[in-house]
Amino acid sequence: MRYQIGDKASVTKTITETDVYLFAGITGDLNPAHVNEEWARETRFGGRIAHGILTAGLISAAIGMKLPGPGTIYVSQTLNFTAPVKIGDTITATVEVAEIVNGKRLRLRTTCANQRGETVLEGEAMVLPPKEGSER
Amino acid sequence: MRYQIGDKASVTKTITETDVYLFAGITGDLNPAHVNEEWARETRFGGRIAHGILTAGLISAAIGMKLPGPGTIYVSQTLNFTAPVKIGDTITATVEVAEIVNGKRLRLRTTCANQRGETVLEGEAMVLPPKEGSER
Amino acid sequence: MRYQIGDKASVTKTITETDVYLFAGITGDLNPAHVNEEWARETRFGGRIAHGILTAGLISAAIGMKLPGPGTIYVSQTLNFTAPVKIGDTITATVEVAEIVNGKRLRLRTTCANQRGETVLEGEAMVLPPKEGSER
Amino acid sequence: MRYQIGDKASVTKTITETDVYLFAGITGDLNPAHVNEEWARETRFGGRIAHGILTAGLISAAIGMKLPGPGTIYVSQTLNFTAPVKIGDTITATVEVAEIVNGKRLRLRTTCANQRGETVLEGEAMVLPPKEGSER
Repeated sequence: MRYQIGDKASVTKTITETDVYLFAGITGDLNPAHVNEEWARETRFGGRIAHGILTAGLISAAIGMKLPGPGTIYVSQTLNFTAPVKIGDTITATVEVAEIVNGKRLRLRTTCANQRGETVLEGEAMVLPPKEGSER
Repeated sequence: MRYQIGDKASVTKTITETDVYLFAGITGDLNPAHVNEEWARETRFGGRIAHGILTAGLISAAIGMKLPGPGTIYVSQTLNFTAPVKIGDTITATVEVAEIVNGKRLRLRTTCANQRGETVLEGEAMVLPPKEGSER
Repeated sequence: MRYQIGDKASVTKTITETDVYLFAGITGDLNPAHVNEEWARETRFGGRIAHGILTAGLISAAIGMKLPGPGTIYVSQTLNFTAPVKIGDTITATVEVAEIVNGKRLRLRTTCANQRGETVLEGEAMVLPPKEGSER
Repeated sequence: MRYQIGDKASVTKTITETDVYLFAGITGDLNPAHVNEEWARETRFGGRIAHGILTAGLISAAIGMKLPGPGTIYVSQTLNFTAPVKIGDTITATVEVAEIVNGKRLRLRTTCANQRGETVLEGEAMVLPPKEGSER
């Protein structure tokens, strides 16, 4: 297999108000924690935060665009939301090959960290990489 | 506690090409499976499919808008992608209280099904509902 | 011909973070210069900048909406990116008839300037205006 | 220099109505050729077409994401619009190193083709790649 334990890839993006509002519209998750600044100001987070699943989308990007990349089948994902993502935070999603299962599937360690290096999301993905010599 | 095992809520949305394209832009996941119809037509799915994490966003909506609703802290989520979501599919995300943990946290069974009743995503969420009499 | 050398038209727009993020999503150009504030802060520009081609889109607007307006066929465009466009800059795109070629095509001088009058983009367009008495 | 004449990279995307409408909103180019189906049906193209500059955005993506990639300074671009892009067309933008100028700048041949292999846009870009060992 062309993958090795420890192979890594990452993507980085500053999460904007635009991202949060479009995500709210797409999913219908207009929870005041995400779209009501007056309400959110009184919470423990002191302001609107990004949807946890939006952050998880960056893991999807790292998997689908980089490792293993186009043609990958996404089997499963676990997500532990460990810290809030504020509007304006710059998030790096990293995927790392943790195990090669039966020479077929990859178990990936998946983490998202903010610009201060704090982990905001961690979990694991199981993926079926594209066949060698094929991308579908 | 004001929640009971078996309490349920759901949200439903038809997933459009617009949803998929905006989600691709927000996350940077422009995997050809999602945005290249020529490429996707040759895959086992026969065309572009929605991002799995986009579908997961509907679970986030059911949790954040309905059960437990505004003020909930999203602790964790597991996701098993069991079938593809095609552009134009109508997805219902359902969350159901499976366990009340230490009188504090809720373990929710979370499922997404399409218009034919096929399960496309299943998993569990752990959430911390808002305090009674408070929503923050 | 109803056009004269020196005829001018312009459009103006403040370029927002939303514009830059949507443009990134549409094109797939999530270059860190445009969507990663931490990274961009260390560049010579000191922060995220708009895509040069986004700015060029304002020229397209001036041509398609004003001079020559609806029905114009856009034949070609040259673009020299002379200064960065920051998020929040207000850009004016101006098109000016420079030559009438064979009584048929127009050669336009095309410029974009920011709110301080600095040229950020310059070049030329060749267009085929709509037939007189017709707009198609 | 780490680039060689003939180095190539490309990106592919199906251009949707969503892309065209968002691009129209971002730029203000609401030319009926792009957003008025009734009007556009009577033109030589038989329906709404994508903005030429939107297609050019895919070249920007190939340059900024792949070759030379993050850190590149975009100096100039020429664009010849050789055929219309219809909503639903799948466009591949390809950039290829044509010349290394003074060991510093790259002249790139830039082409966009549709799913039938027809060239819809061609031109050249001049870019300043990131310094070796640096990406800014």
